[in-house]
Amino acid sequence: MSLNTFGHLFRVTTWGESHGPALGATVDGCPPGVAVDEAMLQHWLDKRRPGQNKNMTQRNEPDAVQILSGVFEGKTTGTSIQLMIENTDQRSRDYGDIANTFRPGHADITYHQKYGLRDYRGGGRSSARETASRVAAGGIARAVLDQLVPGVQIKGFMVRMGAMALDRAAFDWDAIDGNDFWLPDSAAAPEWEAYLQKLRKNHNSVGAIVEVVARGVPAGLGAPIYGKLDTDLAAAMMSINAVKGVEIGEGMAAAELMGTDNADEIYMGENGPEYSSNHAGGILGGISTGQEIVVRFAVKPTSSILSPRASIRMDGAATEVVTKGRHDPCVGIRAVPVGEAMMACVLLDHLLLHRGQTGSIGPVGKIG
Amino acid sequence: MSLNTFGHLFRVTTWGESHGPALGATVDGCPPGVAVDEAMLQHWLDKRRPGQNKNMTQRNEPDAVQILSGVFEGKTTGTSIQLMIENTDQRSRDYGDIANTFRPGHADITYHQKYGLRDYRGGGRSSARETASRVAAGGIARAVLDQLVPGVQIKGFMVRMGAMALDRAAFDWDAIDGNDFWLPDSAAAPEWEAYLQKLRKNHNSVGAIVEVVARGVPAGLGAPIYGKLDTDLAAAMMSINAVKGVEIGEGMAAAELMGTDNADEIYMGENGPEYSSNHAGGILGGISTGQEIVVRFAVKPTSSILSPRASIRMDGAATEVVTKGRHDPCVGIRAVPVGEAMMACVLLDHLLLHRGQTGSIGPVGKIG
Amino acid sequence: MSLNTFGHLFRVTTWGESHGPALGATVDGCPPGVAVDEAMLQHWLDKRRPGQNKNMTQRNEPDAVQILSGVFEGKTTGTSIQLMIENTDQRSRDYGDIANTFRPGHADITYHQKYGLRDYRGGGRSSARETASRVAAGGIARAVLDQLVPGVQIKGFMVRMGAMALDRAAFDWDAIDGNDFWLPDSAAAPEWEAYLQKLRKNHNSVGAIVEVVARGVPAGLGAPIYGKLDTDLAAAMMSINAVKGVEIGEGMAAAELMGTDNADEIYMGENGPEYSSNHAGGILGGISTGQEIVVRFAVKPTSSILSPRASIRMDGAATEVVTKGRHDPCVGIRAVPVGEAMMACVLLDHLLLHRGQTGSIGPVGKIG
Amino acid sequence: MSLNTFGHLFRVTTWGESHGPALGATVDGCPPGVAVDEAMLQHWLDKRRPGQNKNMTQRNEPDAVQILSGVFEGKTTGTSIQLMIENTDQRSRDYGDIANTFRPGHADITYHQKYGLRDYRGGGRSSARETASRVAAGGIARAVLDQLVPGVQIKGFMVRMGAMALDRAAFDWDAIDGNDFWLPDSAAAPEWEAYLQKLRKNHNSVGAIVEVVARGVPAGLGAPIYGKLDTDLAAAMMSINAVKGVEIGEGMAAAELMGTDNADEIYMGENGPEYSSNHAGGILGGISTGQEIVVRFAVKPTSSILSPRASIRMDGAATEVVTKGRHDPCVGIRAVPVGEAMMACVLLDHLLLHRGQTGSIGPVGKIG
Repeated sequence: MSLNTFGHLFRVTTWGESHGPALGATVDGCPPGVAVDEAMLQHWLDKRRPGQNKNMTQRNEPDAVQILSGVFEGKTTGTSIQLMIENTDQRSRDYGDIANTFRPGHADITYHQKYGLRDYRGGGRSSARETASRVAAGGIARAVLDQLVPGVQIKGFMVRMGAMALDRAAFDWDAIDGNDFWLPDSAAAPEWEAYLQKLRKNHNSVGAIVEVVARGVPAGLGAPIYGKLDTDLAAAMMSINAVKGVEIGEGMAAAELMGTDNADEIYMGENGPEYSSNHAGGILGGISTGQEIVVRFAVKPTSSILSPRASIRMDGAATEVVTKGRHDPCVGIRAVPVGEAMMACVLLDHLLLHRGQTGSIGPVGKIG
Repeated sequence: MSLNTFGHLFRVTTWGESHGPALGATVDGCPPGVAVDEAMLQHWLDKRRPGQNKNMTQRNEPDAVQILSGVFEGKTTGTSIQLMIENTDQRSRDYGDIANTFRPGHADITYHQKYGLRDYRGGGRSSARETASRVAAGGIARAVLDQLVPGVQIKGFMVRMGAMALDRAAFDWDAIDGNDFWLPDSAAAPEWEAYLQKLRKNHNSVGAIVEVVARGVPAGLGAPIYGKLDTDLAAAMMSINAVKGVEIGEGMAAAELMGTDNADEIYMGENGPEYSSNHAGGILGGISTGQEIVVRFAVKPTSSILSPRASIRMDGAATEVVTKGRHDPCVGIRAVPVGEAMMACVLLDHLLLHRGQTGSIGPVGKIG
Repeated sequence: MSLNTFGHLFRVTTWGESHGPALGATVDGCPPGVAVDEAMLQHWLDKRRPGQNKNMTQRNEPDAVQILSGVFEGKTTGTSIQLMIENTDQRSRDYGDIANTFRPGHADITYHQKYGLRDYRGGGRSSARETASRVAAGGIARAVLDQLVPGVQIKGFMVRMGAMALDRAAFDWDAIDGNDFWLPDSAAAPEWEAYLQKLRKNHNSVGAIVEVVARGVPAGLGAPIYGKLDTDLAAAMMSINAVKGVEIGEGMAAAELMGTDNADEIYMGENGPEYSSNHAGGILGGISTGQEIVVRFAVKPTSSILSPRASIRMDGAATEVVTKGRHDPCVGIRAVPVGEAMMACVLLDHLLLHRGQTGSIGPVGKIG
Repeated sequence: MSLNTFGHLFRVTTWGESHGPALGATVDGCPPGVAVDEAMLQHWLDKRRPGQNKNMTQRNEPDAVQILSGVFEGKTTGTSIQLMIENTDQRSRDYGDIANTFRPGHADITYHQKYGLRDYRGGGRSSARETASRVAAGGIARAVLDQLVPGVQIKGFMVRMGAMALDRAAFDWDAIDGNDFWLPDSAAAPEWEAYLQKLRKNHNSVGAIVEVVARGVPAGLGAPIYGKLDTDLAAAMMSINAVKGVEIGEGMAAAELMGTDNADEIYMGENGPEYSSNHAGGILGGISTGQEIVVRFAVKPTSSILSPRASIRMDGAATEVVTKGRHDPCVGIRAVPVGEAMMACVLLDHLLLHRGQTGSIGPVGKIG
């Protein structure tokens, strides 16, 4: 990963600012001959699109993606794919305040310190609008994965939002797409919505934890010591705006376990090894086990809120910041499809790496 | 990051297995003219060295590092530095069992699945002995950092070990080096030791959380969107053996906060911006703020324990695994200097990246 | 360099096909605060633009570049810059033949063999239209270089075209921009034109050698052993369409020299070391000496010609290929601004690398 | 390629100085399960070893390679391989002069300018001794290639040395290994030797051109636009010490050809496409055609000669340099196995890249 690119063989470079003419992603290293069209990508972008309901920002962007290169007659050609999304709802207004003021908890101040200047309109490059590019690129990754590993499934869902927590006993994989919170528990969604709307009316915002699970991933993906699957997943998720923590499997809670609890015991199943549990989150020694890959990440509460916070101006003068504008009360919700996209990109990248090094897209060493 | 290399400009490639003749690191991109000698590196290696007390593995390795290239008359030359540590205490014994059996919670099975073969002696490449190479490379990074950013300080310490948790009220930065647990609370160390010894006698192991803090880091390090400072720190820490979670600042707990709580308010201090709090862990938008950089990571309990666990053999037959040998009851302890080394490498790498792009080793944009 | 990206710190990724909707370049790692606008880039693109005179293809493309990101209020922001050039003169015609036939000397057959499919329209990704993206990116590099190293000059010119060869005795740096062949000898240009027009009328094409010289480059750029300045220049030039050879300084002719002839003797000048000659082409041990950087590359004759050549179809049947369409009789002419762009990108990249590693944009070690 | 590493998936990082304790290479990304041992590597190192006859330096180094990691029970494990060669014949002598003086045509001055200090003993990092590491790494690459592409052959040979030129009419592939000059014309070798010995006695040195040919390489290796096979070959060869030019196929001479001459016509053979000629050197559009891959590179005459040349000292004072010591009168001879090693590494790297992206180690698109 370096600057605006991630991935080893399946490489994604994103570009664009919140209020520039467009943003997008250059996808390099894609396998050839895979059916891809704009509608397939739009499906995933629509999951992340703003303005769909009252739980997200009211900015109204169609987020229509155009494929400018690398696809010919409906199939990837193996050369670099350019995905572009035009910005259409950049409101022309007075940005005077924000140009000279640093919002607490926001990248305003560090961009200024690093570069000496910044595109302050709508957060510029630091805006979460950049994640639309990732979702588009993730759509390409999904299409390739589907062809190489039929049956692979990637789903993200919320497991916490402030005081609200998912009841694991009620977990329902099929419920996830049926509510505005990507909750695997339809019955709980109204309560989450009431909680969030109350916060929003109080001019506040709230953090969240998103879990992304991949089913059907073959054993053998990843590589010691720095090309580990969990290393790249951690980097991928931490690179999403506002993320402050990443967990694989048991995650931080592993610190409270004994060795006798934590080790997932192994049994021989009909189709290969099976495990009594999945504390490891499907990854041992940086390499996939064939179990579910389980990643969680914490998203901090939106820093752009209507409640006044103390800050300073560029000239050093004290000020108070109240961020008007159209902001998500919980950016964690729209981070769900972004987390899925990152999972898809990382898995495909490691599938290609593994195939490059070993010639296989699954386990090389046989068991039983 | 790719396979066995990490870093963009300050690049570290490690090599070697637990029971091979030697292991080490190739360090590329180091600035020239920095005073470095073996004694300086040995200082840090001795912190990680096994067999020092009864809280760690009894394997007795001097871990003596040799500098084979890239240093001339006591100074770095700017060319690639080779650091080698010979293995001296590989016990010659019967490895027969381990060659055909997979320890639950261990990389045995995934290495076999990925590669079709593995060096099973002492865990081979998946052994935590690899981290000695990182500590040696980290020693180089520290020497350069000290010269470029006088006063920078990097310290790691334990904040949790199973049921034991650090009392933040008793936090004492100067106490860290004075006890076997790198605890910032000397008074608590005996209790932690008693807890661990009891576990060890019960043939068990336990997880831990390590926190690494860097003081004196200038604002402006890191880069959107995938070259973020927190992205690389997350990858660096997750790449350490047995790590299952990484947090920056507030970490996973950010999910339970409101926007009004989480945003660190900004004031103008004598030497620049100051903050009312540090929920951000010193990083906003992927770029350092000048505050303390705060990273935590969770280490799972050692999977190699004397308590029997169900598993399978390479031929698929069920078996029970009891791992004899000399293992750490809590690998988190020896992960402390490793986390420090990774922090040093990542900070130096980003300092060089920032200097390359902007010509500065600190903030470019002035405030006040 | 990997797939569609080149550069270490100043990284350029290009995308787009000859007859797709657009093509362009994503430029990452650019220093912030540098004045850049579309007109500056257009200046260089106009040098490469087709259809300007009868010595080049008659395809009429304005090659108007748009800056979609990374520049704010006329200055680079340090984030990724997207440069897009829309294709406007893709003639709608019957591509039936070319889809199933392989032109001798062209990438048709290898793209098919590598990927199993290809965008055959106008050569698709293998078309030299891709080089427009490089020239646009080179314009960014030039703007940054001008700011960091005032007085640096980069000029490309032709030194051979078939039987025509530059008379070095007549060399005139200031004449280069005054004729259609970028010849440093204005008087010779009419003869070159007559030669080329005769070839064109005979349905033929011809090869060329382009030399690119950079003046005012500081000593110290480049790095052993694979990050050498000449290594990257060789790769950069060889990556240009149709290039078959690259030389630094004396080049291939060095094979015929004795050690006594080849070594450039060193004298102490007023401003540092001076040399009696420049067989080295300004690079010793992969690092710039402060002399002129001299690179030459050979461009093969266009394979798309009106003279029939034997070939096969995708089904293996023998055929004869006559390539109609609008092709350059000597692609070397339009390769001149491309070579300049690559030189600018490589020099800037190494300037940033050197600054990152040493903190200097010139020599670190003093002499005298 | 960056600093001391080359390759994308099969990555080689070299380290070590001429008079340090050892030098070597870290080889990462090697496929697992390939039989490799020290004797196999030694075979290639012995081709490059100094002191074998009077046509090369009389430094006497066994160049014995040790495998320190990544190979277990005679097979590669897929993890990083460390290859180390100890220096044994570093003569202890007075280096006083060379420390403060710059040899004309040598990297002495640029290393000093870049880094401010240098290991001057025997040329330090800039010594051609570094190429021993490449030959060792190339031995690994050859072993893997042999397994993946049975029948592949890589041979280097000299085609020019000063006034001596290979008579192509006498070309004999099988003669190459039978004389001290790797000449494909045994009858000519005595004349070459007489020529070189005369030069040596006159305290002079001479340049050379080496050609490296790979037979049996499948079509489809390489990738547009910067991951081209010829791009990487050019970089690989130009990175070898003293190389000043690189040619693919027709090379620089392509500039003098017409399109009707240069295009290799295509016919359908029994096993796929065949070509009437190989002006392209086996590469079209950056991708292999299945023909012989043909690369040539020019090596300048050794700058370290006994004839006095004008130069300066570090303090700027004029001086005259006569380089005593044990130097090759024509470094081109020992560059032959180095060029072969680079060819092997680049081909394997692209084979793995192609397999990663497409799943194939040969052509994907069928013909006929």
